[in-house]
Amino acid sequence: MFMKRAFSVLNKNSISSVVKNSENAVRGPVAIRAIQMKKEMATGKKFKFEKLVPMHSGNPQALGQPPITFGREVLSIMMHHQFGQDVSYDRYSVDAVDRARHYLENMDPQAIGAYAGKPDGYDPIKKEVIDFIRERDGVDVDPSKLYLSTGASEAIEIFLRLLINDPNDAVMIPTPNYPLYSACCVAYGGQEVRYGLDENNNWALNLEDLQKSYQDAKDRGLNPKGIAVLNPGNPTGQVLTKQNLKDVIEFAYENNLLVIADEVYQANVYNGNEFHSMRGVMEELGDPIKSKLEMVSMHSVSKGFTGECGLRGGYFEFTNLDSFAEEMIYKLKAIKFCAPTPGMIAVGTMVNPPKEGVNSPEVVSLYNKEKDHVFGGLQRKAGELYEKLNNMEGITTNETQGALYSFARLHLPEKFIAEADSLGIHPDLHFCLNLLEETGMITVPGSGFGQEEGTAHIRMTNLIYNDKVMDDSMANMHKMVSELHGKYS
Amino acid sequence: MFMKRAFSVLNKNSISSVVKNSENAVRGPVAIRAIQMKKEMATGKKFKFEKLVPMHSGNPQALGQPPITFGREVLSIMMHHQFGQDVSYDRYSVDAVDRARHYLENMDPQAIGAYAGKPDGYDPIKKEVIDFIRERDGVDVDPSKLYLSTGASEAIEIFLRLLINDPNDAVMIPTPNYPLYSACCVAYGGQEVRYGLDENNNWALNLEDLQKSYQDAKDRGLNPKGIAVLNPGNPTGQVLTKQNLKDVIEFAYENNLLVIADEVYQANVYNGNEFHSMRGVMEELGDPIKSKLEMVSMHSVSKGFTGECGLRGGYFEFTNLDSFAEEMIYKLKAIKFCAPTPGMIAVGTMVNPPKEGVNSPEVVSLYNKEKDHVFGGLQRKAGELYEKLNNMEGITTNETQGALYSFARLHLPEKFIAEADSLGIHPDLHFCLNLLEETGMITVPGSGFGQEEGTAHIRMTNLIYNDKVMDDSMANMHKMVSELHGKYS
Repeated sequence: MFMKRAFSVLNKNSISSVVKNSENAVRGPVAIRAIQMKKEMATGKKFKFEKLVPMHSGNPQALGQPPITFGREVLSIMMHHQFGQDVSYDRYSVDAVDRARHYLENMDPQAIGAYAGKPDGYDPIKKEVIDFIRERDGVDVDPSKLYLSTGASEAIEIFLRLLINDPNDAVMIPTPNYPLYSACCVAYGGQEVRYGLDENNNWALNLEDLQKSYQDAKDRGLNPKGIAVLNPGNPTGQVLTKQNLKDVIEFAYENNLLVIADEVYQANVYNGNEFHSMRGVMEELGDPIKSKLEMVSMHSVSKGFTGECGLRGGYFEFTNLDSFAEEMIYKLKAIKFCAPTPGMIAVGTMVNPPKEGVNSPEVVSLYNKEKDHVFGGLQRKAGELYEKLNNMEGITTNETQGALYSFARLHLPEKFIAEADSLGIHPDLHFCLNLLEETGMITVPGSGFGQEEGTAHIRMTNLIYNDKVMDDSMANMHKMVSELHGKYS
Repeated sequence: MFMKRAFSVLNKNSISSVVKNSENAVRGPVAIRAIQMKKEMATGKKFKFEKLVPMHSGNPQALGQPPITFGREVLSIMMHHQFGQDVSYDRYSVDAVDRARHYLENMDPQAIGAYAGKPDGYDPIKKEVIDFIRERDGVDVDPSKLYLSTGASEAIEIFLRLLINDPNDAVMIPTPNYPLYSACCVAYGGQEVRYGLDENNNWALNLEDLQKSYQDAKDRGLNPKGIAVLNPGNPTGQVLTKQNLKDVIEFAYENNLLVIADEVYQANVYNGNEFHSMRGVMEELGDPIKSKLEMVSMHSVSKGFTGECGLRGGYFEFTNLDSFAEEMIYKLKAIKFCAPTPGMIAVGTMVNPPKEGVNSPEVVSLYNKEKDHVFGGLQRKAGELYEKLNNMEGITTNETQGALYSFARLHLPEKFIAEADSLGIHPDLHFCLNLLEETGMITVPGSGFGQEEGTAHIRMTNLIYNDKVMDDSMANMHKMVSELHGKYS
């Protein structure tokens, strides 16, 4: 009755090279091997360690970080099916009930279970974000230029989509960098132009290098149209100085580049370093920059001391765009649907937390206590990573000034590198796979983020909430590294 | 100090034609005009109506549909910051507390606030989906072929991304159809090949027409690689017969097409019609089809009587894919992050609701009561739409057998069509904008979904929960239509 099907539709040859070439290092070979191990452990197989330690992903609550009470109370109330009816919520703080009621009264009825009536999300939350940006940067944001989004990653996708129109169109991204930028450049058929961060200067941005990368790209016939600045940096953990930010903004202005200000780690700044938003610095630079430079800046509930990755909430805000570009953003966001409503609510409680003089003293005090506890732990562990990694043989690392990572340099023995070559994998991937087998620590090899040719790195997070797990892991790694250098020297 | 910037980076000329050409009819000119009206109403401007009636979007809770208690109880409990500690949840049913505990114990600790450890989502929810598919289709799903997703739309994006590798690669999609398919074909640089649904036969799929479209496409040098089947249909509201489904599956098999089975409206089937899943029909057809045909089928919490659009939960499940294709799906889903956790939980409570013999009688009885109430209302209003639209001058429509829409044919006066032409807009858009001004009803013109050349349609939803609002709206539309025919005849 049937002809024989000649071949499968989707196979190695037929699938788009765009898909084949895209990469996600964080969920790459090390994470995949760890998932396999977890399955094997469940069936009784023994490894050299008792438990996997997931240090590869900036996933705070998976690593034990507790959620902030106020935000979760508001969400728990709003999720309740009878909320809005005459039901008392005496389990919760009055402040949380009030906030939930405020949202409900200013959103559509039953809004939590609905697509927002417009692609930019619900207005009462947007209003809180506008107040937050005003307080941070001293600027008044036009509501039509602010979108609540599914995490911050959506802004990256939308703006790279808008920028790339031709195979020679390019976006400047740091080396090393968070791999979603590369994946989007590839996916939309454009080019990435890498600018190096200076490892010897705590991963600072070097203006001369930036200019050189730009000029090289132009000489190769590319057309750089945007520049991504990740501050605090991922995977590199640096916090850029105000002068650094001024330099890059002026550079972008002079060279007609749209600035993508990826500031999702703005609440993760440690040990006396200071965060400056690019929006604020742009304002400070005055005209013509503040009224001409095209910029999008973004934030997320996934990081900081909020750490609500699972809720997928964020926002992006843009300045000085052509009205046609604004129309296109509206359309693209509409095609992608509105952000998840629980994520939107989480954005509201993150940017507008309990405040002295507004909320009841107990609620403010609990919030401050929780914040200080979580933040304090992250700050302390950022210091521990720095110290302990630098104490290991053949490992050097910069201070984790911000974000959730140390990006440490691996100086590996020649024989180990040769072994990796013979396996056809990068030496740092070989190292991370070994580390996993020996200690259960899941990490990300630097080769997944892009790094200077001939170097090897490892990204690890300071997010392990439990002190003993953190201490034991670092001790296990120390031992593994010593043994490795002994064995391969 | 600065050079003058020559131009804005993003403008009408520089933005990718892919972006310019993509469309979203549901959030198109009529919805945009409605948002503007809403703003004007807030400042005191008067219109001919008191309130906007959003009949353009399949957004159940925004239109008053209440959420199902059980699902929301589980979510409210899991969102609570102390859940998992020794706290009693006496506000909720014991069954909801038990389910929440079951999820918690089988997920990672604090999983609700975390990215799932793997791109396919949390296992206890996946297990419930596997049981659901077994019960529905009599098949055992391999867990590695099932992904929890951000609504169902993510599966459309991923599979169209995989299928399109060349400008001549094409996906067959129905006319009319839900616009995300066209948008993805455009975005990934491929072609759409339209196959007509037969309006004179209640929008059934006609095999001869399908074969003809396929052959025409081949003759034009295109390479059709997949076929999307929406059942129940959007915007057309038909439910395909089992014979129809067998025909299209055999057709796909013979012509080496991957089948995209979009079944998000499977719980919206009215008045004696019956839903057959393509997965089940494929199984019934036996070998070689059941062991060879590449298919992905999907479902969502947004529709049905669940109606949780705001939570963005869904799943997709695929069969008979090449292992390389499976690896690429894993990678693409990893790049896009896991689905929002509240959406995953909602998938669990949707596919595994309270059941007799498992749950307490009160909880089962409340669930059944809620379900019957919501479903009964939708079924009744589907009938009302059919009857009332057919009673209006120059409007004919098919029965809404399923989904949430009537897609009615507009037979418009020549003078009205000429007026639309002079405005440079499609006559059905002109009609929908008029309807909005006169009655406040927000609808979608058929031209946004693709339709047979020379015809005009309107899509309206049966979701208006409040009977009086529904009745008044239909009466207002009746009056508007009569007046329009009087004025333009």
